Amino acid sequence: MKKIRVAVFGASGYAGEELLRILLRHRGVEVVAITSRKNAGEPVSTVFPRFTGVPLSFVAPDAAELAGQCDAAILALPHGLATEFAIPLLNAGVKVFDISADFRLKSAAKYKEYYKVDHPAPELLEKAVYGLPERYREKLRTADLVACAGCYPTSSILPTAPLLAAGVVSTEGIVVASCSGVTGAGRKVDLPYIFPECNESLKAYGVVGHRHLPEIEQEMAFAAGVPEMAINFIPHLAPMNRGINSTILMNAEPGCTLEKIGEIYEAAYGHEQFVRVLPAKRCADTKYVFMTNTCEIGYNYDAHTNKVIVTSVIDNLTKGAAGQAVQCMNIRFGLDEAEGLI
Amino acid sequence: MKKIRVAVFGASGYAGEELLRILLRHRGVEVVAITSRKNAGEPVSTVFPRFTGVPLSFVAPDAAELAGQCDAAILALPHGLATEFAIPLLNAGVKVFDISADFRLKSAAKYKEYYKVDHPAPELLEKAVYGLPERYREKLRTADLVACAGCYPTSSILPTAPLLAAGVVSTEGIVVASCSGVTGAGRKVDLPYIFPECNESLKAYGVVGHRHLPEIEQEMAFAAGVPEMAINFIPHLAPMNRGINSTILMNAEPGCTLEKIGEIYEAAYGHEQFVRVLPAKRCADTKYVFMTNTCEIGYNYDAHTNKVIVTSVIDNLTKGAAGQAVQCMNIRFGLDEAEGLI
Amino acid sequence: MKKIRVAVFGASGYAGEELLRILLRHRGVEVVAITSRKNAGEPVSTVFPRFTGVPLSFVAPDAAELAGQCDAAILALPHGLATEFAIPLLNAGVKVFDISADFRLKSAAKYKEYYKVDHPAPELLEKAVYGLPERYREKLRTADLVACAGCYPTSSILPTAPLLAAGVVSTEGIVVASCSGVTGAGRKVDLPYIFPECNESLKAYGVVGHRHLPEIEQEMAFAAGVPEMAINFIPHLAPMNRGINSTILMNAEPGCTLEKIGEIYEAAYGHEQFVRVLPAKRCADTKYVFMTNTCEIGYNYDAHTNKVIVTSVIDNLTKGAAGQAVQCMNIRFGLDEAEGLI
Amino acid sequence: MKKIRVAVFGASGYAGEELLRILLRHRGVEVVAITSRKNAGEPVSTVFPRFTGVPLSFVAPDAAELAGQCDAAILALPHGLATEFAIPLLNAGVKVFDISADFRLKSAAKYKEYYKVDHPAPELLEKAVYGLPERYREKLRTADLVACAGCYPTSSILPTAPLLAAGVVSTEGIVVASCSGVTGAGRKVDLPYIFPECNESLKAYGVVGHRHLPEIEQEMAFAAGVPEMAINFIPHLAPMNRGINSTILMNAEPGCTLEKIGEIYEAAYGHEQFVRVLPAKRCADTKYVFMTNTCEIGYNYDAHTNKVIVTSVIDNLTKGAAGQAVQCMNIRFGLDEAEGLI
Repeated sequence: MKKIRVAVFGASGYAGEELLRILLRHRGVEVVAITSRKNAGEPVSTVFPRFTGVPLSFVAPDAAELAGQCDAAILALPHGLATEFAIPLLNAGVKVFDISADFRLKSAAKYKEYYKVDHPAPELLEKAVYGLPERYREKLRTADLVACAGCYPTSSILPTAPLLAAGVVSTEGIVVASCSGVTGAGRKVDLPYIFPECNESLKAYGVVGHRHLPEIEQEMAFAAGVPEMAINFIPHLAPMNRGINSTILMNAEPGCTLEKIGEIYEAAYGHEQFVRVLPAKRCADTKYVFMTNTCEIGYNYDAHTNKVIVTSVIDNLTKGAAGQAVQCMNIRFGLDEAEGLI
Repeated sequence: MKKIRVAVFGASGYAGEELLRILLRHRGVEVVAITSRKNAGEPVSTVFPRFTGVPLSFVAPDAAELAGQCDAAILALPHGLATEFAIPLLNAGVKVFDISADFRLKSAAKYKEYYKVDHPAPELLEKAVYGLPERYREKLRTADLVACAGCYPTSSILPTAPLLAAGVVSTEGIVVASCSGVTGAGRKVDLPYIFPECNESLKAYGVVGHRHLPEIEQEMAFAAGVPEMAINFIPHLAPMNRGINSTILMNAEPGCTLEKIGEIYEAAYGHEQFVRVLPAKRCADTKYVFMTNTCEIGYNYDAHTNKVIVTSVIDNLTKGAAGQAVQCMNIRFGLDEAEGLI
Repeated sequence: MKKIRVAVFGASGYAGEELLRILLRHRGVEVVAITSRKNAGEPVSTVFPRFTGVPLSFVAPDAAELAGQCDAAILALPHGLATEFAIPLLNAGVKVFDISADFRLKSAAKYKEYYKVDHPAPELLEKAVYGLPERYREKLRTADLVACAGCYPTSSILPTAPLLAAGVVSTEGIVVASCSGVTGAGRKVDLPYIFPECNESLKAYGVVGHRHLPEIEQEMAFAAGVPEMAINFIPHLAPMNRGINSTILMNAEPGCTLEKIGEIYEAAYGHEQFVRVLPAKRCADTKYVFMTNTCEIGYNYDAHTNKVIVTSVIDNLTKGAAGQAVQCMNIRFGLDEAEGLI
Repeated sequence: MKKIRVAVFGASGYAGEELLRILLRHRGVEVVAITSRKNAGEPVSTVFPRFTGVPLSFVAPDAAELAGQCDAAILALPHGLATEFAIPLLNAGVKVFDISADFRLKSAAKYKEYYKVDHPAPELLEKAVYGLPERYREKLRTADLVACAGCYPTSSILPTAPLLAAGVVSTEGIVVASCSGVTGAGRKVDLPYIFPECNESLKAYGVVGHRHLPEIEQEMAFAAGVPEMAINFIPHLAPMNRGINSTILMNAEPGCTLEKIGEIYEAAYGHEQFVRVLPAKRCADTKYVFMTNTCEIGYNYDAHTNKVIVTSVIDNLTKGAAGQAVQCMNIRFGLDEAEGLI
């Protein structure tokens, strides 16, 4: 079978490294180009010694030129840059999988509220399919532009959407408290991210109005079938490389039981190979999804406050970024959905 | 000045090690005995090489005998054992500072609900003063039995009590999401606590009915002046040695503003040397209280859900255990409250 | 093609977990049994939640019974137990890949010197092929019993053997200083391995007469073509999960240059897919072999002491244990040597 | 008693933070100024939130002006800057304690060889007393300029000097393999030091000609009473905040025994409060000197290679930098040598 030709834009960060790790073992694709503005011309091993011997070099990110050489483009660029790359690629018929947040919101107004600038191509917001296969698999099969779900959102939406859809929890008063490993901040050379500042440190940040908030609220509202939701999302930085744990509190609606929740999850995810629901009353643990594409979910019920408490973990670089993009690409191109991901 | 003679019961765990670290530099005390059932007869350096050269050996925990040799006893024993030690010590006039949870609850019924056994000495529950100096300093000056506040409770009560007392936040719907370093589990030799199981792992546990919950609810209710409160307390284990971060969401009452909160904290803690309130909108960070007796507090307000969000950090072994006990002891014996703690 | 039926003995430790991670994605094998004395009867997910959904349960380690059900057996048992399992398996024609140190020494006398007991089956010491494919690939193609190279030895032998064979370094005065992550100690529930004891801790141990020493000396002597060698091997425990770094100092023989060393390595490893030699003067880094089957080697020369200094890193659970066993098995059964390992 | 007025130059790095931690609890000093070129004008809490409430602000590093306000100056500046500060301070009669490497070498030629520039004030090299109290206490009592011993050198010199002086080990063939926590690199914002690059990473660096090498060789030669020595010093970066472990191999001279070594150490350090020698055959562990001013030493003998193997640990920021400087200052000003350090 002919291999899908893939170009990775912005391949010198952690998501890029994880994409290469996955794509180089993927039997259905050929990596035809990896771009990096500042490393153009250098072999991939200069940036990532683990790829010593891999015959790939970074090239400048010329979308127009690369459009002719690939079937799929995965964009792992910093926020705000995806549009200028996506347009020429889409025009040339290339399928685009964007790992950034640029096309995730359906509302250009929300985009402006949280990003403080007008969206450069609001028509693409409508066109983009939200890249969370467990929620939008059918749409992904024919998508041209995929806005891969973010890391915090993936860990928040997968455990809540089925419960909201089933009406067993209230749309009001939801609290998502998340902890992320440091790769979640990207390969950023900044004082707060040097080792001695992160080690033995755990802290909340962006507790009001984090940019992932509207994405989470949007998808929760879609699942619940309501026009809008307002929740609290509290991210924390934890001293580990990879992993997100989201602990989510929801008000139980009458009739909500652990058994009922178990059934809803079974119906939603019993057949999903990348979602693992634990037996009732257990809690998820980031180490069991480390370097995997799996989302692990645990669920509990607290009678004394009438709360459903779910815990959900992913690897932020795999299911939260690179793995998700490849899973979406596999679906789009009719490949085995798990290829390269196990 | 004559030195206070101190005995430490249960000195072979992490709280015991931290107590020794503090007491050995404390200019107002003399450590007359350290007990450990399993290490009795061994020099302290056998268990803690850092104390090589310190002329102390563990003795068997014979409270009756040691009662005659000390003015103060600090109990760092596993839960459930404090009563049998406290009674003979109190009878002999020794001031007792208990680091365990055994005397923290005022209600014997709550104790039974959470610990599944009758409290062995309910009369001591009433007698005990809750060992949180910033809340009960005056009572501590004359206390015979001090139930030192727990680690999670200290990080939860200090930032919430003044706000509850002032009525700017609701007593309903409070969520406390905490992350603790692994020493919080004690020096426990058990599979979940070995390095490879904890490293790159973050997980919730005890999300329903954790034993620290009734203690937190009790003190919050006292502060609010209500008979009872029900909150959610969600502890997590994080890959670090020391530190607790508690992120707390509360419903704002009408008129609650960041400025008002700042004033309330200033009135409550402006003069406290072990509470540090950050400027508005900042978040606390465990690394800035590492190996200190300080509680650092940050506060935020989220208009879109009308929540007050406070973050609060302590070192679980210092302000959450050993440091707190020494601070209480300093107060009780009229010493400089900060002696040994800076 | 018919799949190789594999049984894993002692599958509840870290090497067992890593074996399962590899074998479950391996397209040429079927895992027919996993054994664990204490977990017999339990589904694999009880011990390793990451394998939730994998339809495997632990069985008791009955070698005679399992011999009839498998083509290959991988032994990941504690030291000293391999013989009793290997004999019935070998008798039944099963190919045995032992991850322990039980069959690695050729000399029963050395075994007794370091293990303090007589070897239970010295004839197997002769029969066993040392499982280091880059040194013994041809022998491995027909081996019945493979004594997979240890973790420290692999990181020590791969970078030194070609230099010793070429005579560019002296057989005298070699120093190997190694640092290992904590999984190197196994999934051992013991005080020195709990998180707070390992974190922020780095220490040497077993600095005289470590059990991996004779294995390293044996293989170095074989490479050098001398009857015996005596070196210093100094292991350290470092606060990380996985990874071994070995820094090795050797006395340069006349004519030894960096260029010459580069040529020797190119000849030895230029065609090897699991050995990566860095450009001269660089140092290897454990993070670049994390969760891979690769050994990365860097080399330097210090003129002021006339020493060749090589650094060598592996992942102790992959190239140092499970990956190595699978690589050997792939060779033995004529499969692609890298199957399951990329 | 009148307090010593201390100015800290270059107080915004990790050594500066540690100096403040120590000096703020020191009862014999008053911190009159802290300098930082880039943070001048900012309160100390802007850079180090732990010092919130401490009434100190950074000022520009004007040595001439500050000379009139202080009795002692501690320089925690980047390498190469100390001379321009030291000269005006010394001229004004201020005692100078330099934490950098600028005045540690006695030979201007060696300085040029390793630093590639002429030393700006070679006359100060002679004047400077090497700041390692356990070796040069008497000279320190009257020193005007103290070149505090470096972190790697301290951990290398303390365990070797007495053995070299006693002639029980050879001056030839010494190997020092050291591992340092990441604060050893300073508070440097550079890609190799961000958390995900350091975590699960252990690597050698600077294996040939590290700048601490001539300092170690110089002090070893002084101890041995020989004009020059050549050793191998191999530093590694380990995933922890603080701590240096140095493992040192030396050729035993005839008559060298563990007992003899124990006696030599007892004579050298039995009375030292900041050196702790473990019983024979034990190994030192960085965690037992964490945030202390202690150097812990373990010693072993390997008969099969006739090597003495010592392990030595310090906290690189305390005994390796700030604590050492304060210890030297205490000696110079006739204060209790341990003041502020326990």
